[in-house]
Amino acid sequence: MKSLEKEMYNLCKELFPINRSLTGEGVRETLGIIKSHLPELKISEVPSGTKCFDWDVPQEWKIRKAYIIDPEGKKIADFKKNNLHIVGYSEPVDCVMSLEELNSKLHSIPEQPNAIPYYTSYYKKDWGFCITDNERKNLKEGDYKIFIDSEFFNGCMNYGEILIPGETDEEIFLSTYICHPSMANNELSGPVVSTFLAKHIQSIKSRRLSYRLIFVPETIGAIAYLSKNLEIMKKNIIAGYQLTCVGDNNNFSFLPSRDNNTLADISARHVLRYLKIDYDEYSFLTRGSDERQYCYPGIDLPVCSIMRSKYGNYDEYHTSLDNMEFISEEGLRGAYDVYKMVINSLEMNLIYKNNSLCEPQLGKRGLYPHLSNLDVSEDINNILNFLTYCDGETDFLRIAEKIQCPIWKLDKIVSPLIEHELISVSG
Amino acid sequence: MKSLEKEMYNLCKELFPINRSLTGEGVRETLGIIKSHLPELKISEVPSGTKCFDWDVPQEWKIRKAYIIDPEGKKIADFKKNNLHIVGYSEPVDCVMSLEELNSKLHSIPEQPNAIPYYTSYYKKDWGFCITDNERKNLKEGDYKIFIDSEFFNGCMNYGEILIPGETDEEIFLSTYICHPSMANNELSGPVVSTFLAKHIQSIKSRRLSYRLIFVPETIGAIAYLSKNLEIMKKNIIAGYQLTCVGDNNNFSFLPSRDNNTLADISARHVLRYLKIDYDEYSFLTRGSDERQYCYPGIDLPVCSIMRSKYGNYDEYHTSLDNMEFISEEGLRGAYDVYKMVINSLEMNLIYKNNSLCEPQLGKRGLYPHLSNLDVSEDINNILNFLTYCDGETDFLRIAEKIQCPIWKLDKIVSPLIEHELISVSG
Amino acid sequence: MKSLEKEMYNLCKELFPINRSLTGEGVRETLGIIKSHLPELKISEVPSGTKCFDWDVPQEWKIRKAYIIDPEGKKIADFKKNNLHIVGYSEPVDCVMSLEELNSKLHSIPEQPNAIPYYTSYYKKDWGFCITDNERKNLKEGDYKIFIDSEFFNGCMNYGEILIPGETDEEIFLSTYICHPSMANNELSGPVVSTFLAKHIQSIKSRRLSYRLIFVPETIGAIAYLSKNLEIMKKNIIAGYQLTCVGDNNNFSFLPSRDNNTLADISARHVLRYLKIDYDEYSFLTRGSDERQYCYPGIDLPVCSIMRSKYGNYDEYHTSLDNMEFISEEGLRGAYDVYKMVINSLEMNLIYKNNSLCEPQLGKRGLYPHLSNLDVSEDINNILNFLTYCDGETDFLRIAEKIQCPIWKLDKIVSPLIEHELISVSG
Repeated sequence: MKSLEKEMYNLCKELFPINRSLTGEGVRETLGIIKSHLPELKISEVPSGTKCFDWDVPQEWKIRKAYIIDPEGKKIADFKKNNLHIVGYSEPVDCVMSLEELNSKLHSIPEQPNAIPYYTSYYKKDWGFCITDNERKNLKEGDYKIFIDSEFFNGCMNYGEILIPGETDEEIFLSTYICHPSMANNELSGPVVSTFLAKHIQSIKSRRLSYRLIFVPETIGAIAYLSKNLEIMKKNIIAGYQLTCVGDNNNFSFLPSRDNNTLADISARHVLRYLKIDYDEYSFLTRGSDERQYCYPGIDLPVCSIMRSKYGNYDEYHTSLDNMEFISEEGLRGAYDVYKMVINSLEMNLIYKNNSLCEPQLGKRGLYPHLSNLDVSEDINNILNFLTYCDGETDFLRIAEKIQCPIWKLDKIVSPLIEHELISVSG
Repeated sequence: MKSLEKEMYNLCKELFPINRSLTGEGVRETLGIIKSHLPELKISEVPSGTKCFDWDVPQEWKIRKAYIIDPEGKKIADFKKNNLHIVGYSEPVDCVMSLEELNSKLHSIPEQPNAIPYYTSYYKKDWGFCITDNERKNLKEGDYKIFIDSEFFNGCMNYGEILIPGETDEEIFLSTYICHPSMANNELSGPVVSTFLAKHIQSIKSRRLSYRLIFVPETIGAIAYLSKNLEIMKKNIIAGYQLTCVGDNNNFSFLPSRDNNTLADISARHVLRYLKIDYDEYSFLTRGSDERQYCYPGIDLPVCSIMRSKYGNYDEYHTSLDNMEFISEEGLRGAYDVYKMVINSLEMNLIYKNNSLCEPQLGKRGLYPHLSNLDVSEDINNILNFLTYCDGETDFLRIAEKIQCPIWKLDKIVSPLIEHELISVSG
Repeated sequence: MKSLEKEMYNLCKELFPINRSLTGEGVRETLGIIKSHLPELKISEVPSGTKCFDWDVPQEWKIRKAYIIDPEGKKIADFKKNNLHIVGYSEPVDCVMSLEELNSKLHSIPEQPNAIPYYTSYYKKDWGFCITDNERKNLKEGDYKIFIDSEFFNGCMNYGEILIPGETDEEIFLSTYICHPSMANNELSGPVVSTFLAKHIQSIKSRRLSYRLIFVPETIGAIAYLSKNLEIMKKNIIAGYQLTCVGDNNNFSFLPSRDNNTLADISARHVLRYLKIDYDEYSFLTRGSDERQYCYPGIDLPVCSIMRSKYGNYDEYHTSLDNMEFISEEGLRGAYDVYKMVINSLEMNLIYKNNSLCEPQLGKRGLYPHLSNLDVSEDINNILNFLTYCDGETDFLRIAEKIQCPIWKLDKIVSPLIEHELISVSG
């Protein structure tokens, strides 16, 4: 049996070559492969032209071929070789132009001469090619034949969602996006880690919370999903996370919610701190993914983001260098483990209340050494500290923060306290 | 046409020689000159003896002559030469006394041997002379003839006010005092900068806010004004500033209101920070001007003070060295510019609300580049940041603080957002 | 007449040899001696077996003799020589055992070879002896004769309390414990300093507040007392202090209440700061005495603790080295003085309100120099600062904190302000 990290890495590898975009076959194929891991995944479609708040779902874009024939007859920038070569949503073209004319349609990065950049033009008809700057520098004067066999038509935009019910309606929300072609950290890591987190959630025995995981095209997908589900989401979601850039093995990053202090933020920081993970905390002003929508005024969902290398903060970002070598089994596994612990912590996060006034007599229940001593064990200390903040109002995570102890360590002392009827679940 | 700073400096020069006090001709002459610049200035009088809260308006004090004849027949400490020589509100005297007796009535500053100090005895009948310590050290034993031709009588206390209406009743309050004789920073700078700020305010097109500027004798004038106008002031004033010591070209100072976090404080600190001005922030415990009254319990107005060298914190303070050389065109202009920006910022400080849920599609309005890219411009970033905090409750200044951008920079992006009906003014 | 510190030290000396425990003669003797200093002390008894919240009052324990006869016939670990030799609440034993068997019943501290440790087994029948590690190392193989002449029977648990009424029902609560045998800092210092604080409180003329001082066995005594008096305590107590470890002359320690910012905490920190006392502030997580009960959820009393060397934080703690040499007259006196100042500060802590709007005219009441000057005295400055925060809502201590001046210094300016009817007591 393969290790979890190997399975995640392999799924990335399988999905990597697919040409994803906001809409189209690539998205459907991607969702289909995810569904093969998560049979409960429900795949929905939103027709082109559907109004979603201020936006309209774009037409489907289909691309068959795209390349340039250079003056020497060589095929370059061939979409078949790397789907980053074509600017996303390029319109069909079949023409000849000079190098000078072509240059305005070419994109490369002088500072990263070996990288093919990632460009799209979703909402205005345009076209273009992306190539490495090294290749560009070798282009000679002459006639270039441009050929793009693409098509726009009224179809749909697809997304996937999976609702995993628990004992209560309170929901944890995980969101990730499936619209990026052939880049690994941003963004196959998010969908892949989300897939395996869904499996973990499904495996939780006596699952207390409900879970809503969505796999959507970035921005328009999130907006479309919100426009259909806002009421129930605002009612049920108690914490949410945007999963993106969770595949490389560099430092962790944390982007808080707009509110900065929701349950989502508290549990994320708690887990990062007590797993002793080095991480950089960013300002919400540096946000850049779908928390832009989830935290928007009027939406106001408690959504933050734990990442590895944050989008925009690593050289390989939005280029062909964000490839399968940039991410790793360790990177994916590290992010998975953190999110798993966040989920587990939220599952533990009940509100307890003391059943008696004053400290209970732990000794007569075998929970305290009968011989007085200078020091008591850490466990007993944790019991006493937990009880003294256990006021029927403060939730478990906030108590854990106050007594500076990871909730998963504290959680072990809860069962005996419940058995002995010293505490009970509040409300 | 003269520059603004030259005009301000010249007005100081014109007002400098006048012998101002709590009451009397000097105040009326000063107000008259200010009225020549601000024809709308309304000059009021409060009769001597009028009860104002715990205080009584003092009698008018008129002084014609005051000097000492030394044993050699030389006239010294002549009020005609420098009106600081006579202790303010000195009673009439015509007598001869020994140097020893006289000494108890003389004031000088040993540490500043060339400075004539500024003394008053407003509320108890007394008299005295102020001279330089150098002059004092040369006084010989012998008989001194003292002559003070002054008079107290029931007259009035004068003050000026100008109300500049705007679209709303919400008022900005500017207060300054006009009771100091022949000192420049403290206090001609305040009345002069206030005069020119009034002109600026009058020139604001489609002025949103109303303005209340008052030129009063310190303490008793502010108290008298409050006793007559408290109700309307508490109802309308949303931010106020005490203008004092705004003439020298040294570092800026900031004295917060008692509350420390009113709109007045927020806008003052915002402007100082984003104009990149070095300034010292003082504690409210070091207050010393009419914010003492405006922030008093039960009055509770949001009044703070932006100054250059703070009263009491510069050697020349309350001496003849606080003269026309101590202040400068640059000093006056610097303070004027800061207050002007505070006023402009408050004019901008509306509450906006988003007209849609989720980010609007900026691209279709030409507000966002259609080609995706690694970075967006600072302007677009500001738009997105502004919108994401634009919740219909947080005012513009507080949003500007959150997104760490000067409000006057942000304000430029508001018009296109309003034109495109993406936001509207709230409430 | 002896000095206060000498009296306190002597009372410690008198109480030191008594064998105190949760119950029994030692406690009664101790309370009797305290009563000889405080005739108003009311001594109560709670019958064995009484249910107090989750606890039951234990049986009385009486011990007459306890010793070991070593293989050479020498009597060791003799309770008569040091009552720490016997584990508190040891059951009767009369047997012979090998050194190996005995070892499991012996307690010593290898790191402190000259110290006899302090052990108890209150709530489970057991027995044991405590000796120095040096003595233990010299024990030879052979038969040891164990003899403990002790007895358990249904009797009572005793505690003392003294209620000192004041003008209002608002109470200050002082708690200390009287269950530790022959240790000085922890714990004779607490009962002794409390005794002399009670005398001080009785001597306060026109005492505003009421006081509740209790001398109880630790934990079970506090719990029993709470179970009988909780309602009235929650109604009346505005600040409380746990007096423990107040006898040595080392640094001060402060343990806040669970809330961390009650009136008890504020006044304790205020006094420590303005008496310029170096102290270590601890987290509530390091609590260890009866504030564990007083701050428990549902009890929620505002109780904190000012100590000298904190329990558990000094080597001599809970050993025979915590003796009369470890504490000192200076140590006791220092703690007494701090608590006395806390009490005095709380007596001063009224809420005042201004009788007029705007600053009053201090000059006409002789409270302000009639001649203006550059600086006013510290007293006048304090008057003005006090008045400007005197809003009829903020209490005197919180004003003193705001204006960074000890309340006892400010309190001197209150009388003239009241006489002149400038302020009055609020509510």
